[in-house]
Amino acid sequence: MPSSSQPGQHIVPSRRESKPKVVIVGAGFGGLSAAAGLAAAPVEVTLIDRCNHHLFQPLLYQVATAGLSPADIAWPVRSILRKQANVKVLLGEVSTVDRNEKLVHFNDDAIPYDYLVLATGARHSYFGNEHWAQYAHGLKRIEDATHIRRQVLLAFEYAEMESDPVKRMQLLSFVIVGAGPTGVELAGALIELSRKALAKDFRNIDPRQARIMLIEAGDRVLPGFPEPLSAFARKALQKLGVEVRLSDPVTLCDGDGVSLGSERIAASTVLWAAGVAASPAGQWLGVECDQAGRIYVNPDLSIPGLSEVYAIGDTIVVNDKNGNPLPGVAPVAKQQGRHVAARIEAAVTGEDKGTPFRYRSMGNLATIGRKAAVIDFGFVQLKGWFAWWIWGVAHVYFLIGMRNRVLVAIQWLWSYFTFQSGGRLITNPDN
Amino acid sequence: MPSSSQPGQHIVPSRRESKPKVVIVGAGFGGLSAAAGLAAAPVEVTLIDRCNHHLFQPLLYQVATAGLSPADIAWPVRSILRKQANVKVLLGEVSTVDRNEKLVHFNDDAIPYDYLVLATGARHSYFGNEHWAQYAHGLKRIEDATHIRRQVLLAFEYAEMESDPVKRMQLLSFVIVGAGPTGVELAGALIELSRKALAKDFRNIDPRQARIMLIEAGDRVLPGFPEPLSAFARKALQKLGVEVRLSDPVTLCDGDGVSLGSERIAASTVLWAAGVAASPAGQWLGVECDQAGRIYVNPDLSIPGLSEVYAIGDTIVVNDKNGNPLPGVAPVAKQQGRHVAARIEAAVTGEDKGTPFRYRSMGNLATIGRKAAVIDFGFVQLKGWFAWWIWGVAHVYFLIGMRNRVLVAIQWLWSYFTFQSGGRLITNPDN
Repeated sequence: MPSSSQPGQHIVPSRRESKPKVVIVGAGFGGLSAAAGLAAAPVEVTLIDRCNHHLFQPLLYQVATAGLSPADIAWPVRSILRKQANVKVLLGEVSTVDRNEKLVHFNDDAIPYDYLVLATGARHSYFGNEHWAQYAHGLKRIEDATHIRRQVLLAFEYAEMESDPVKRMQLLSFVIVGAGPTGVELAGALIELSRKALAKDFRNIDPRQARIMLIEAGDRVLPGFPEPLSAFARKALQKLGVEVRLSDPVTLCDGDGVSLGSERIAASTVLWAAGVAASPAGQWLGVECDQAGRIYVNPDLSIPGLSEVYAIGDTIVVNDKNGNPLPGVAPVAKQQGRHVAARIEAAVTGEDKGTPFRYRSMGNLATIGRKAAVIDFGFVQLKGWFAWWIWGVAHVYFLIGMRNRVLVAIQWLWSYFTFQSGGRLITNPDN
Repeated sequence: MPSSSQPGQHIVPSRRESKPKVVIVGAGFGGLSAAAGLAAAPVEVTLIDRCNHHLFQPLLYQVATAGLSPADIAWPVRSILRKQANVKVLLGEVSTVDRNEKLVHFNDDAIPYDYLVLATGARHSYFGNEHWAQYAHGLKRIEDATHIRRQVLLAFEYAEMESDPVKRMQLLSFVIVGAGPTGVELAGALIELSRKALAKDFRNIDPRQARIMLIEAGDRVLPGFPEPLSAFARKALQKLGVEVRLSDPVTLCDGDGVSLGSERIAASTVLWAAGVAASPAGQWLGVECDQAGRIYVNPDLSIPGLSEVYAIGDTIVVNDKNGNPLPGVAPVAKQQGRHVAARIEAAVTGEDKGTPFRYRSMGNLATIGRKAAVIDFGFVQLKGWFAWWIWGVAHVYFLIGMRNRVLVAIQWLWSYFTFQSGGRLITNPDN
């Protein structure tokens, strides 16, 4: 029942067309699910992202470690939404939001909104040492993954040509800072790359002697998981050959490696999986945020004082019923996207009840190489090879597009049985 | 029979090890086949390339038009040669050759050779208008393909946001200069991208109205093919919607399009498939070259006055028995690579007879979109959908690595039946 003039609603009459305008910023899991949730709503949706593709971020570490190609885990946003007639997709970088005029500014343009959904995600944080970024690359976007892939593969190439044994060992040393799921998955994939896929490709070096170090400031790996799963993951990594250092915060990062207090670790490759900060959406609006820049939202995910603006995913901080913040994972963002879509549809059709968002956990997963994974379903915990297969099936299932599912499944089975990596390309950064 | 001191041979005693040293520059079709041809020879082979991957160049246009991913058509050189114990692979850019000291200079290093094979390929030529390179990108390397893919996909994105109809049409106009196999294949793939894969993805524009122009200075497309196949290809392109302009040389290229004499064609995307020039290998040696920089070689592919140096592939010019230069295609380079490998093995084992190279044509192929191709076997000519399937099977067969064959075959079948393109990613050039 389209209606934009019923009393008691906070709908600004739209300016050019009759239907309320919804603008969604960000085509990640949250933004895309908000857009899809509005498919049947009497609204005009515009989805803006600075990339043309939706990225299946949980598998990004596979691109960084040469297991998959970028196109295997990314899909053009406008293809995904092709059949949803009430959505327009725009490629653009949002610079700010004018909350008084209700305008989103992007590129050299601006677009008016009646409802706004901010799903702009997170980026890396170096906890005040932002200059470390040049030495310790993080992993958020496709370009980060191809950058890391290039860096890792080049380290082996340069080691092959290096005659000084000290420098050669530095080239073959890889440090990963942060032992959350991304750090653990990167460490597992890197150790298998060096121990298996590359093992016989060189003549002067033995890639199996590469040193993979996982460094964590906290006292266990996978701090978001129950204690026994953390212990299992640490042992599984160590069994693969990863050196795990706990309770050891990195105090310095430079072009030659890292320092842990007075100890110095020489490594030509340092990867950053330690911290995230929210995107600047909170600054656009000038609203209250936590230390990591995440917006504090109302229980229904609207922004205090701006009832027509919602924010979801890694842009915000929401606590569960125990007072712990929800993790920055895809299921949270997707459920929040569907929630705000329902709120907006209800507001437009005059039935909004300000229903609070409630997260229904489907389980928390992390994988360690190709033989083990850990899954926390809350009521039950799984670990080992069976968990790995569940993880694999779940990820293939959630990949967007039948074609990608088939291709990724084939590549995984292939590399599972042959230990060969598929995407070992060094491509130039300036192209 | 290893021997580096038999009389009557031109072997320089190797400096550190007992076996003669063969250095091959370039890991394209020619260099790789030379390396493989030396597998059983009593020599130490070093293969140097500035990329870590061998590129299956005949399918590069598929990456440029978002049909395949880079890793589908490229494979790490050291993986390919993993099992050949007498080959070392080095990642490096050769700067010059010292023919007196018999040294190849690369990066900040140098490597001695007893035999040298130059398989350095070709690059674009703008026939004296090298500044056109910034406006009309060519297609030789993976990075060229991802650059073109980005440029083409962005043109549609910008057109979607453009309100001025003249500018919109300019964004939707694509000019391809040169109607050899690469130009014809690019035109066919681009028209299908716009007419099929992208057709329903936009809201403000209709990608089917995109204008694809193929401009050729000569009087027919595919000048290397027999006349009837050229005529068939031209008609097939026109049937798909490509505008074909013959006998019309481009006189100017700039950021807004091209000029054909006094006629001006506004196009925001201009692709260059018109000319090639050899790599600077001839300059390294200071030997006689033709206008395109290709080295004149002896009938056995050695270089006049330098009997221990061979050159193959697009680096050289060789005429067939009718006095026409051999085409710059993979089969020529591969056969030449095998030929010089045999020559070097014979020289080392004391049996060199200076056998001249003779090209055995296996047929010449070009494809026009996904429904037609032309094949010239010499004794018989094929055209149409049957030729397309032969072309597809042949190319999948020749792709290196079983994994790639399977993946490419699946993606082709998928896109053949669904008309969806797989690799439609816009990735940033600065990463």
